[in-house]
Amino acid sequence: MKIELRPIGYVRSPYRERRDAPRQGRLSDAVSEIVVDPAYEEGLLRVGEKTHLFVLCWFDRADRERLRVTPPKNPVEHGVFATRSPDRPNPVSISVVDLLGIKGCVLSVRGLDALDGTPVIDIKPFAPDIDIPGWDEKKGEE
Amino acid sequence: MKIELRPIGYVRSPYRERRDAPRQGRLSDAVSEIVVDPAYEEGLLRVGEKTHLFVLCWFDRADRERLRVTPPKNPVEHGVFATRSPDRPNPVSISVVDLLGIKGCVLSVRGLDALDGTPVIDIKPFAPDIDIPGWDEKKGEE
Repeated sequence: MKIELRPIGYVRSPYRERRDAPRQGRLSDAVSEIVVDPAYEEGLLRVGEKTHLFVLCWFDRADRERLRVTPPKNPVEHGVFATRSPDRPNPVSISVVDLLGIKGCVLSVRGLDALDGTPVIDIKPFAPDIDIPGWDEKKGEE
Repeated sequence: MKIELRPIGYVRSPYRERRDAPRQGRLSDAVSEIVVDPAYEEGLLRVGEKTHLFVLCWFDRADRERLRVTPPKNPVEHGVFATRSPDRPNPVSISVVDLLGIKGCVLSVRGLDALDGTPVIDIKPFAPDIDIPGWDEKKGEE
């Protein structure tokens, strides 16, 4: 089966090279922009009402052939599916970002670790009840 | 730019058609299996040590041309990027699942809402510190 992604936009960020990017976007306060292609602008209706978004990017500079990595924080060999390494068969990244604002087709966000020019493939609202394990139980305890 | 995904496996689930699937996987207790292609087995090393995973699927039965939807729980028109609708330009789903077990190339999970046969494109460990907004602040309050 052939599956072809269509980038919906790209990232404008202060990170030009892989060594510049933080290990994870949430560990940095830098503001990035997501520039959505005007062809997809209709899909942004009411995105401005959200506070937190998932942003899915395509890490086009990743190594897709790599199946084992040794993470810096836990230096034993892991399969890539047990890590958040950008190197993996399908380098789709997931970042939970704070939405700071939206103006036309440009979203300002905090918490993205993508390099400048990285293709964006999807934006989704973050939903605590489905995206945080045990959320219902936690609510029950309050 | 052409970006081609390579499915790493597929879902074995009790849901045969879209109307059978729960609105979101976490709202159901059903157990699904992720059958990883043996070509990617090396990438599973140490996945069994994780309790919660992100599973990314390709919703091959979604409508990729749709940019506006009216969600059942909030019946006003939204852009698809403000919803979790499977219909979107790149129908990549994100599910946070409980890992129940792993045997060879087959993972048993709870919390997946994918139809039987859905291609899986990635598996990542869920990491509260980067995937839950405000986690550091929350820890500080404790």
